[in-house]
Amino acid sequence: MPETEVKPPLAVEAAATPLRARRSVYPEPFFTMMAGREKRPLGDLFGLRNFGVNLTRLAPGGRSALLHRHTKQDEFVYIVAGSPTLVTDRGETALKPGMCAGFPAGGVAHCLVNRTESDVLYLEVGDRTPGDLGEYPADDLAASLGADGSWRFTHKDGRPY
Amino acid sequence: MPETEVKPPLAVEAAATPLRARRSVYPEPFFTMMAGREKRPLGDLFGLRNFGVNLTRLAPGGRSALLHRHTKQDEFVYIVAGSPTLVTDRGETALKPGMCAGFPAGGVAHCLVNRTESDVLYLEVGDRTPGDLGEYPADDLAASLGADGSWRFTHKDGRPY
Repeated sequence: MPETEVKPPLAVEAAATPLRARRSVYPEPFFTMMAGREKRPLGDLFGLRNFGVNLTRLAPGGRSALLHRHTKQDEFVYIVAGSPTLVTDRGETALKPGMCAGFPAGGVAHCLVNRTESDVLYLEVGDRTPGDLGEYPADDLAASLGADGSWRFTHKDGRPY
Repeated sequence: MPETEVKPPLAVEAAATPLRARRSVYPEPFFTMMAGREKRPLGDLFGLRNFGVNLTRLAPGGRSALLHRHTKQDEFVYIVAGSPTLVTDRGETALKPGMCAGFPAGGVAHCLVNRTESDVLYLEVGDRTPGDLGEYPADDLAASLGADGSWRFTHKDGRPY
């Protein structure tokens, strides 16, 4: 047993927390497209297991993800700073701080794109329902969530990347 | 079939969304203690099912909840405006905008209290794991989540309120 038990903090300043080590889990050429994106995993800091919360920063030209939807997991975003464009397969919407959007499993495909000259900062929430699939209507990519919690990516015909 | 299908909006201004109809689900005398609290259910607006997100406002003197923990559900809060005090059974911490806190199932009992003269605004996230119990270390109250998704409250000895 350790002599001193290290307890997680009661609260933290979100923007001062460590970045996620991996920039993206996408295979190339999609990995490089996420170069303008930084994620700070906030829920994990406190030991949350049922959902994740990230504070994510998009540099000018950056994007949240490929256009995608989940088959089982819900997602939610709340804009903290900046003016991203919400791109979906139902159209586009300009967002600003204080606006939010939710993406139920099986709903519209979506991503945030930063077409401005300033950083965008937003909170993103997603649950961890097992057996989830990621669908990418605009790209030759398919994702499945493994039993170990990691994503596996293939071409749409099943060939590995 | 309806002639026109009403689709949810792609995005909304969080502070302009409708208030939750019920002020609190607590029985008295706890119901009245929540008089300074207003919740705007954001995730529900978009049809999210796996977790809830609320934008919650605490007037001066208001509080988020009784001191409580969940046995199965995780919770997370992010402070948007104002300076609430996070009260836990491990101590108190002063919060300010941009700070966040997470409360894993079975972790510290917690609530936010607004001891200032200004409103507090925060986002709260909680999942919907079934079979959850609410534990209230400072009050004669016990809660269990029914199969219909509603909370049942009793005294700690099981007597109904």
